[in-house]
Amino acid sequence: MAATIPTVRQQAENAKRVAGELARQDSATRDRALLAIARMLIDEADLLREANLRDLARAQATGTPLPLLDRLSLAGDRVSEMAKGLRDIVDLPDPLGEVLRGWTRPNGLRIEQIRVPLGLVGFIYESRPNVTIEATGLCLKSGNALLLRGSSAAWESNLALVALVQRGLESVGLSPDLVQGVLTPERYAVDEMLGLTGLLDVVIPRGGAGLIQRVIQLAKVPVIETGVGNCHVYVDASADAAMATDIIVNSKCQRPGVCNATESLLVHSGRAEDWLPAALGRLGEAGIEIRGDERVRQVFPEAVAATEADWETEYLDRILAVRVVDSLDDALAHISRYGTRHSEAIVTSDYASAERFLAEVDAAAVYVNASTRFTDGGEFGFGAEVGISTQKLHARGPMGLKELTTTKYLVRGNGQVR
Amino acid sequence: MAATIPTVRQQAENAKRVAGELARQDSATRDRALLAIARMLIDEADLLREANLRDLARAQATGTPLPLLDRLSLAGDRVSEMAKGLRDIVDLPDPLGEVLRGWTRPNGLRIEQIRVPLGLVGFIYESRPNVTIEATGLCLKSGNALLLRGSSAAWESNLALVALVQRGLESVGLSPDLVQGVLTPERYAVDEMLGLTGLLDVVIPRGGAGLIQRVIQLAKVPVIETGVGNCHVYVDASADAAMATDIIVNSKCQRPGVCNATESLLVHSGRAEDWLPAALGRLGEAGIEIRGDERVRQVFPEAVAATEADWETEYLDRILAVRVVDSLDDALAHISRYGTRHSEAIVTSDYASAERFLAEVDAAAVYVNASTRFTDGGEFGFGAEVGISTQKLHARGPMGLKELTTTKYLVRGNGQVR
Repeated sequence: MAATIPTVRQQAENAKRVAGELARQDSATRDRALLAIARMLIDEADLLREANLRDLARAQATGTPLPLLDRLSLAGDRVSEMAKGLRDIVDLPDPLGEVLRGWTRPNGLRIEQIRVPLGLVGFIYESRPNVTIEATGLCLKSGNALLLRGSSAAWESNLALVALVQRGLESVGLSPDLVQGVLTPERYAVDEMLGLTGLLDVVIPRGGAGLIQRVIQLAKVPVIETGVGNCHVYVDASADAAMATDIIVNSKCQRPGVCNATESLLVHSGRAEDWLPAALGRLGEAGIEIRGDERVRQVFPEAVAATEADWETEYLDRILAVRVVDSLDDALAHISRYGTRHSEAIVTSDYASAERFLAEVDAAAVYVNASTRFTDGGEFGFGAEVGISTQKLHARGPMGLKELTTTKYLVRGNGQVR
Repeated sequence: MAATIPTVRQQAENAKRVAGELARQDSATRDRALLAIARMLIDEADLLREANLRDLARAQATGTPLPLLDRLSLAGDRVSEMAKGLRDIVDLPDPLGEVLRGWTRPNGLRIEQIRVPLGLVGFIYESRPNVTIEATGLCLKSGNALLLRGSSAAWESNLALVALVQRGLESVGLSPDLVQGVLTPERYAVDEMLGLTGLLDVVIPRGGAGLIQRVIQLAKVPVIETGVGNCHVYVDASADAAMATDIIVNSKCQRPGVCNATESLLVHSGRAEDWLPAALGRLGEAGIEIRGDERVRQVFPEAVAATEADWETEYLDRILAVRVVDSLDDALAHISRYGTRHSEAIVTSDYASAERFLAEVDAAAVYVNASTRFTDGGEFGFGAEVGISTQKLHARGPMGLKELTTTKYLVRGNGQVR
């Protein structure tokens, strides 16, 4: 007789039931769990690689392109990197229990606002199976139970990873129910997760724009929107030429497929002749396709003619849209219209331009004279990140451990009434 | 020819267009706007009362019960109270521009996290027209534009209030588009608001459980869930008798119709005989109907037999559910099962019980030896509140001006690249 697969709701209820248990553990116990899971990954690396090879074989058979196969693979040192990731999270300070503020009211009530876990966190993510371990590490460290739904491409790898996580939890006396992978393979399992109001305290989607939009449209539970970045670099009239070139080359080329890579370059008309052609030449040498407006093509004829769609597109590719603007005002208006409020940079040597850009651009991270590529938990010094929030509620920008917590008010009295 | 009524989306677009203008104003200008609106309310009080009388006449004609008519009314000193509310908000500290944290990275990047407005806030609320002015005051003070949708019962009153707000804004040189009342009277206008992703940065519903649930089910935009409170007082074995009586009487009777009023009393079995009958007698004298379990009815036969539904219900009425429990564990289990994570109180003189209750109860506010009625922006010292959040993302508990803000990262460099 085959065992019955629990429904998504049953899995969430099981996780929620034990979530309070983890929240009450001290940080030493939570850290011990992470270290036990890290050891389990190393000890059972062969088992993981076997499961991963089955995913890879299936993916190859269906003609999955090479870059996606690479994202799926747990070959080489990927397993030991996952284990190291967990040990790095252990070294981060415990986010829980911090007293954010506290005061005494005139009637003697003592009020404290303290940091506590969210409860049960849902992750919906694509392709890379190492997200399973990153999410596990960050959620357990911050005292949260976890319901994971990875991609079907990484199904066997994720099952094997969650099984090891659960063995690690048991080995330190914690409930394996704390971390669960959704066992329903059908696509409706995602819709079911998104409807679990009262059970899931938040769902965090990680993946392409399609996934994020689907989650936002369907979710009844609170969502933290992540990742879509149509980022700009604006080169001001007063920009240092060498610095401007370094920054646009880095922002565009260092890793074009990620959300904090720059997609559009805006250039003050005063720099269209003395700086732009050489900079675009450098980008061309680096293999970047340039799509420019009329004034760009006058000084750089190799540019393809840009259309409206180019200003709107997050390419995540070796393509850059380029526009000449007549003023900082025009640059701000362009960014306000087309930007996705992720990361925006100005290159300037003018104090007023820098401060105006910082004040007026509405984005998670606004840069003066630095690459947009710095919007990242590691680069910000958070040690690890859950993703980059592009919404304004709860968390904005790189999300570390603190963003996986909420607060509660403790109020101590001696008989106060109203 | 009649003027065309703008659609909900057009109104939101108009508000969003000018939202940045307000965000850039200094606090003196924002305060001047609130004072101008306060003066406008006083100067045009007759005009407001006329509009309000039309709403009241319509409500009376359709048989609206007296308490609802009272909530709808702007008679007596209600208009001057609204004006005073605005002046009180002026006196609160400006939430904007605060640097929450700042640090320098090893590569020299200087990162600051500063407090900025959310952008465009949506309010959906029932009955009381003074919410129009409270929401306006709090949102303008925190630099946000505002799209308001009040109840159809207060339609004329709200139209008149928004018109005066807009005149006040214009009188200090700000755009009247900053505060808009939805002009589409049909019910689908609410659904349309809830679908305005990318325009509304948050929607805050204020009203009964039906409204809140409808908003959560339909919203594609971020929501802050407010208000449903199935709150408990637990009287521990070691509770001081007089203090326990004062606290349950205050928690239940001082204002039974609000979310922080207590709905259930849990009593340790050791106090079922020496304390419970007298306390329930006091509540009975105050006009409270008691619904008790078997053990309550043994010591207080006047109690109606409680059913499962009684533990689940937020009465918002002069009814109290009462249960005898055998231990703190049983009380915690009951609260975990039936509570709505709003406000929970223990009355005890035992240190360990107090600290365990504070640590283990998962709620926005957890009390030792004080009434649940203190969960309130004014009582917490926030000066004014937008509502009480019962969700865990972004804000939890009383929401003041800070909860109407988000943050952004300002990153200053001198050419840094990765």
